[in-house]
Amino acid sequence: MRIAVLGGDGYCGWATALYLSNKGHSVAIVDNFIRRQWDYELGVQTLTPIRTLADRLRIWQELTGKEIELFVGDVTDYDFLSSMIQTFGPEAVIHFAEQRAAPYSMIDRKHAVFTQVNNVVGTLNLLYALREFQPECHLVKLGTMGEYGTPNIDIEEGYITIEHKGRKDVLPYPKQAGSFYHLSKVHDSHNIMFCCRIWGLRATDLNQGVVYGTMTEEVALDEALINRFDYDEVFGTVLNRFCVQAALGTPLTVYGKGGQTRGFLDLRDTVRCIELACLNPAARGEFRVFNQFTEQFSVLQLAHMVQAAGKKLGVEVQVDHIPDPRVEAEEHYYNAKHSKLIELGLKPHLLTDSLLDSLMNIALRYRDRIDGSKMLPQVNWRAAHNERRQPASGTAVGTRMAEVAK
Amino acid sequence: MRIAVLGGDGYCGWATALYLSNKGHSVAIVDNFIRRQWDYELGVQTLTPIRTLADRLRIWQELTGKEIELFVGDVTDYDFLSSMIQTFGPEAVIHFAEQRAAPYSMIDRKHAVFTQVNNVVGTLNLLYALREFQPECHLVKLGTMGEYGTPNIDIEEGYITIEHKGRKDVLPYPKQAGSFYHLSKVHDSHNIMFCCRIWGLRATDLNQGVVYGTMTEEVALDEALINRFDYDEVFGTVLNRFCVQAALGTPLTVYGKGGQTRGFLDLRDTVRCIELACLNPAARGEFRVFNQFTEQFSVLQLAHMVQAAGKKLGVEVQVDHIPDPRVEAEEHYYNAKHSKLIELGLKPHLLTDSLLDSLMNIALRYRDRIDGSKMLPQVNWRAAHNERRQPASGTAVGTRMAEVAK
Repeated sequence: MRIAVLGGDGYCGWATALYLSNKGHSVAIVDNFIRRQWDYELGVQTLTPIRTLADRLRIWQELTGKEIELFVGDVTDYDFLSSMIQTFGPEAVIHFAEQRAAPYSMIDRKHAVFTQVNNVVGTLNLLYALREFQPECHLVKLGTMGEYGTPNIDIEEGYITIEHKGRKDVLPYPKQAGSFYHLSKVHDSHNIMFCCRIWGLRATDLNQGVVYGTMTEEVALDEALINRFDYDEVFGTVLNRFCVQAALGTPLTVYGKGGQTRGFLDLRDTVRCIELACLNPAARGEFRVFNQFTEQFSVLQLAHMVQAAGKKLGVEVQVDHIPDPRVEAEEHYYNAKHSKLIELGLKPHLLTDSLLDSLMNIALRYRDRIDGSKMLPQVNWRAAHNERRQPASGTAVGTRMAEVAK
Repeated sequence: MRIAVLGGDGYCGWATALYLSNKGHSVAIVDNFIRRQWDYELGVQTLTPIRTLADRLRIWQELTGKEIELFVGDVTDYDFLSSMIQTFGPEAVIHFAEQRAAPYSMIDRKHAVFTQVNNVVGTLNLLYALREFQPECHLVKLGTMGEYGTPNIDIEEGYITIEHKGRKDVLPYPKQAGSFYHLSKVHDSHNIMFCCRIWGLRATDLNQGVVYGTMTEEVALDEALINRFDYDEVFGTVLNRFCVQAALGTPLTVYGKGGQTRGFLDLRDTVRCIELACLNPAARGEFRVFNQFTEQFSVLQLAHMVQAAGKKLGVEVQVDHIPDPRVEAEEHYYNAKHSKLIELGLKPHLLTDSLLDSLMNIALRYRDRIDGSKMLPQVNWRAAHNERRQPASGTAVGTRMAEVAK
C-alpha cells in the first residue's frame, strides 16, 4: 500500500514510517522539521541523540534495502502539499503533521494562534488536496483522547446515541477539550466530518491516548535509527518524564492530587493501530473514530509504578505534589471505550515492569544529556503570558499561579 | 453601559449600534470595512444605497445628539484590538466581526481557509485582550443556529443533559455544522467555553437564526442611516432574497424540496436580544448559550408566504425548485428551543403580512439597483472550486453539480 506519513520526522511519525516500511508498504515521509525548531526555541533536546532525517533514511535503506521517499515542506503550503499528493499518489495518508503539545499552545497568545492556525489550515489543505487529486485516498488523522475532556459519563468512540424527549439520534460525542492544542484537534474533527459528508472522503480519526516508550522493533535495529524521547515540561509526556526524573534522582512531579486519569499506550501499539486503520479503510463518505489507547491510569498510579521500578534498580524515587499548572479536574470519573482497534486485531503491549525497566535504562544511559531545569512546569494555564526564558525553580509555578489568581 | 460593537458597519452590527446608542448606552463601533470589500470582490451591492460609515455617524449625531465612537481596524490585528479595549474600556463587547456567509466560505479552499482563520483568530485575539485588559467585560458573541445542524432530537440551548449507562452529565450540545463558515462558529464556541473555564471570563453565545428585515426604529429616522439589504446568492438571506425576486417578477428559487426548516427572526428582535444579553450579563466563568430566533419556517413555507404577499400587491410570483447547491437534508425533523431570551423579556416581532409588504416595498423602491444575475446559486458545496466570475444561468448549478457528482 502507498502510504504518506505527514510529520514522519517526529516521535510517533518516525516509528510509524519505519514500521510501515518494514511491513512492505511503500512509504513517503513529509516533514518540514519544525519539531526540531521547537527544541531550539525552548532550549531543550530529546534525551536520545537523534540523527538528521537524511542520515536516518540512508541508514534504514542500507540496513533493510527499503527506500522511504522524502518530501520536505510544510502542509500549510497548499502548492507543496497538493503537488506531493499528485506525485506520490497515496492510498492512505497518516496525518501527524501538527503542533502536538498542550503546554506549547498555552505559552501565550502567539503560540495559541500559531497552534490553531497551523493545525486547522494544514488539515483543511489536506482535505482539499484529497478532494481534488486523490478522492479515494484514506485519511488517517491523529486526534486525541483529550478532545473528550473528562465527562461524568462513559466516553464512547466518536459518537453517542442520545435519547431525548422520546426521540433518538446518533450524534458526535460532545467535546470539552482542555487546551488550545486539544481544541485544535476538536476543530479538525469537525472539519473532517463535514468533508466526508459533502465530498464523500473516507477518514479515520484516531483519538490517541498518551504515548510512552521510544523503542520499536525497527528503531532498535541500529542506534542511528533511534527515536525521539522528550522529557521536558512542554513536549515530554508524563511517563517518559517520570522515568527521566527517577533516573536523575529528582522527585517525580505530580500535578496536584494526581487523580487525573487518562488513556495510555505503548508506542509499539501506536504503529500497529495505524497499520490496522490503513488495512481496514473507512468507506467513502465515512468519518470513523477509534479511541486509540490500551489502559487507563491516573498520574499518581504511574508515579507509584515508576517508584516501584526504581526500587528494583536500586534507585530511591520520591513523589512530589506540586500545584497543577493546568486547569483540570484533579479527581474525576473516567471510563473510555477502546474496543474498535482490538476488534481489528490489536494485541496490546500492556505497561509492565520490564517496559519501565527499559525506559529507565534508556534514561540512565543518556543521563548526561538530561537538563534537570526543564522538567518543572513553566506554562501556567491561568496566565495569558508565560515567560519561558526565566529559570525554573521549585516555587516558580506556585508563585505565578498566585499572581494570576487575583 | 459602555458597549463596543465589533463589525458595527455590517447588517446586524449597524442596526445594533444605533439601537444601543439610542437607548443611552455609550457605544463604539469597531470595523475594518471588509464587508464592503467583499461586495467589490463578488460584483454585488446592497439593494439599499448605504453611506460611508463616517457619514452615517455624523448624521446620527446631528439627528440625535448622540456620538458613536469609531475605531477603524482589524480584530485579527492584536495590537489594534488590545489598544481599542484599553482605550474604550467596554463593559460589554458585541462580536459581529466575522465572515458570515456560508456560500462565501464554500467558494474554494482560499475562501474556506480565510473564513476559518479570520473568524477563529479574531475571536482568540478578543479572548486574550479581555483576559489581559478587561477581565470583567461581558463577551456577547454572535454564533449561529447552524452550529447544531439538523439532529433528529430536539435542539436545546447550548447544553444537553445526557443519561448514559446509568450515569448523567450536562454536556455541550453536539455540533454538526453545514459549511466551513458554520464550522468556524463551532470552533469559536469551543474556544470561548474553554476561556471562560480557565480564565473566568464571562460570555454569552447567541446562536442566531436567519435574520430578515432591514428597518429598525433608528434606521428609519433618515435615509442616510439606511441599513444593508443583501439579496445576492452569497450574502443574501433567504427571505430578503425572495422579496427581491418577487419585486423583480422572477421566480423564487427554492433549493431542492424546500423542506429545510430553520429558525428565523426580525432584525428588530436581533437588536433587542443583544441589549437583553448585555443588561443581564453572564457570571464570571460562565459560558452561556441562547438560541436567538423567534419562529421556525421551512424554506417552502416562506416562498408561499411571499407568493401570497405578492398577490396582495398585484404581483404574480412563481416558485421554482432548483437543485440544492448545498449538501443538506431537504426534509428533516426540527424543533429548537428558544425560551431563554423570552424569559429575559423579549417580545418577538413575528413575521406578518405587513412586514412582508414593507420588505417588498423596499425591494420595489430600489428596483433599479437589482442585478438579476446575482440571485442564482453559483457556489456548489460538492465542488472544490467554484468559479464565481462566470455568468449565472438557470442551468449553471445543475450542470456543475452533475460534473462534480462523478
